[in-house]
Amino acid sequence: MSRARTLGVALLGCGAVGSEVMRLLLDQADELAVRIGAPLELRGIAVRRPGRRDVGVPAELFTTDADALVARSDVDLVVELIGGIEPARTLIVSALAHGSSVVTANKALLAEDAALLFEAAEKADRDLWFEAAVAGAIPILRPLRESLAGDRVQRVLGIVNGTTNFVLDRMSTTGAGFIEALEEAQRLGFAEADPTADVDGFDAAAKAAILASLAFHTRVTSADVHREGISAVSAADVTSAEQLGCVVKLLAICERHDRSEGPAVSARVHPAMIPADHPLASVREAYNAVFVESEAAGQLMFYGPGAGGAPTASAVLGDLVSAARNRLGDVRGVGESVHADLEVLAMGDTVTRYHVCLDVEDRLGVLAAVATEFSRHGVSIQTVRQEGQGGDAELVIVTHRARDAALAATVEALAAMDMVSAVTSVMRVEAEAAT
Amino acid sequence: MSRARTLGVALLGCGAVGSEVMRLLLDQADELAVRIGAPLELRGIAVRRPGRRDVGVPAELFTTDADALVARSDVDLVVELIGGIEPARTLIVSALAHGSSVVTANKALLAEDAALLFEAAEKADRDLWFEAAVAGAIPILRPLRESLAGDRVQRVLGIVNGTTNFVLDRMSTTGAGFIEALEEAQRLGFAEADPTADVDGFDAAAKAAILASLAFHTRVTSADVHREGISAVSAADVTSAEQLGCVVKLLAICERHDRSEGPAVSARVHPAMIPADHPLASVREAYNAVFVESEAAGQLMFYGPGAGGAPTASAVLGDLVSAARNRLGDVRGVGESVHADLEVLAMGDTVTRYHVCLDVEDRLGVLAAVATEFSRHGVSIQTVRQEGQGGDAELVIVTHRARDAALAATVEALAAMDMVSAVTSVMRVEAEAAT
Repeated sequence: MSRARTLGVALLGCGAVGSEVMRLLLDQADELAVRIGAPLELRGIAVRRPGRRDVGVPAELFTTDADALVARSDVDLVVELIGGIEPARTLIVSALAHGSSVVTANKALLAEDAALLFEAAEKADRDLWFEAAVAGAIPILRPLRESLAGDRVQRVLGIVNGTTNFVLDRMSTTGAGFIEALEEAQRLGFAEADPTADVDGFDAAAKAAILASLAFHTRVTSADVHREGISAVSAADVTSAEQLGCVVKLLAICERHDRSEGPAVSARVHPAMIPADHPLASVREAYNAVFVESEAAGQLMFYGPGAGGAPTASAVLGDLVSAARNRLGDVRGVGESVHADLEVLAMGDTVTRYHVCLDVEDRLGVLAAVATEFSRHGVSIQTVRQEGQGGDAELVIVTHRARDAALAATVEALAAMDMVSAVTSVMRVEAEAAT
Repeated sequence: MSRARTLGVALLGCGAVGSEVMRLLLDQADELAVRIGAPLELRGIAVRRPGRRDVGVPAELFTTDADALVARSDVDLVVELIGGIEPARTLIVSALAHGSSVVTANKALLAEDAALLFEAAEKADRDLWFEAAVAGAIPILRPLRESLAGDRVQRVLGIVNGTTNFVLDRMSTTGAGFIEALEEAQRLGFAEADPTADVDGFDAAAKAAILASLAFHTRVTSADVHREGISAVSAADVTSAEQLGCVVKLLAICERHDRSEGPAVSARVHPAMIPADHPLASVREAYNAVFVESEAAGQLMFYGPGAGGAPTASAVLGDLVSAARNRLGDVRGVGESVHADLEVLAMGDTVTRYHVCLDVEDRLGVLAAVATEFSRHGVSIQTVRQEGQGGDAELVIVTHRARDAALAATVEALAAMDMVSAVTSVMRVEAEAAT
């Protein structure tokens, strides 16, 4: 291991996270050099528009030619923080082909096309790491990949999107409706002007795909992830959850299913009621947390800030130090692990529980008719509560666990019943096995 | 990297954790082989008494000659689960000298003599890993060492002893006194017949030394850790905490102090009042959690089971898979990192806050006299609450932050005052900067 060598770093993208990475690379250069065993030197920073100036950063480091930057022979490590599919994908593949190890925070790309990226890393015999892609600063991918490498993960439940957690937390604490809470989140900078990617669960679904791939050693892409956002969550849903001793969270749920016909996995993102005493229930505001259930380790939770420039930069730097040490020793860390190659179930084949609220006619026989509809679909009811009287009678039903397809079909059949004037709320109930 | 090779494993100790490691090595052999890239083969299991039999384990694997086992040329990885200083220390050093990488859960030894062990690992160019030594199954050492390698840790607050957390949790939820809660813990198997190591904070102090060493890149031993146990915590203390909006926890506290004369670190274990809405406050029963505050990442928490055969075995296996992969690639992971070599402060020089309860004579001037004593020691009072009247008046005082030595001297002076009939409770208040 040569100690005299300097490692060249190229930074692609210099927004909120990139600026922090740049700052840490410059400010903590001495400390990083000691931890790595060789100094890191910033060779260039690819930005979209020419003419960028930052105090304390030599102007000549900025370039608009990212392609040329990743091809430089004095670059050993490339940090990709552009985001999105292209040009990020082409740049990462080019960086690896030119012999650099790559650190990226690009969840969308990893969830869509991890196979191509890992193949390029494998061919180049270089590292490709992405701790910052899931849950910001929280070290979750490395523990899944390395600390739990001798264990078997059964389930991962994640609050992996800060915007939606902030909105749901506000709805729960203030009684606000979805729109009102979202507007507050936007005012406070916790939600973007166009909140679609967060609110509709696209961001969480990409993270679910990455978590499931690592947890189950199986390739899972965002197309495999069932996705429902939070825009249909109402103040009434939040109140219903409270009456059940629950809170509403948008969860990324990755499960292993040990079926008689062999193991399979599933990944889904949807709002769910979880018990108020579950560790995930106390994750407030824009914080993230990932709850892992594994065979030997039991229940683990990893909690922290899920976004923000400095926290995400910390995760990038952690990967960068490891990748740099490996470059120096001319070795590689753990690559992609998809050896289990388990079947990925469709949403209908997963097993869930439903909480259903129905507006019904208040007359004799309505409960029997509703119960018959559940039983006809093979769904067993755990509790029924009848509320109100006269025209506005309401049935609140919690089912036992059943195939999601059977539950969905039941709800469809209920909605078509004459005695049911409206299905006012449908939400899954999760995380009950946990302490 | 030869893929045809088999890696030999020696297991030292076969108690609760060792049995689980043995079981996982045998049951999950195929899975582990895929993850490592080569099969692991159990070469021998060192036990204290001859004649041990386990269903499904060849009897000839058991041996009472641990020295011979670690010296075998077909052993590549040694798992030390004997605990205590000797013979564990000699065996680990011998295993490294014979070319094995070592995985251990031995917190006492690491906290006392890490320097010797790391020197032996360095000389042998082998891995020495010990995730299982702190907080059982919770991956905390690897994140500190690797994920946060590009960040600067400011503070680590850990609930790292399940027995004491169980006792304090019971005192808080049931109003029980210390002895009663401890007896319940013993009945339920959460405390040993001789609970000294847990109750008096020895176990937590060893873990604090290990955490501080990793977090601050500075060698900290258990002798550097200020240690107070929980046997003096009374039901009244727990009630006082509640009145303050706090709960009582036994904390391992590792801090970086950025002083004008240069940075220093400290490590201490003692009961403390922490705000009820701090994430650590909701760590119930025998669970463990480690809360990390770092410059860029912000506040992270790692939560899970802190003890038990299977959870601890999961941590051992995670290390073993990494060490095995490294043996196969003939490389080493991160070794000891003590480059910062910061000064370790004595307890008196750390900065804390005190919550003090005094039984005082209920007469004019008592508050002024007490306040004068605080101010004479340079300690500023945040709040005073007077309770009761007549013979049993009580003053409840919470101070601002001050040098621990000044706070301790104040309490000593108060106890000597005529007007103070008793100092009924003294406890530090921590973790308030956190959300």
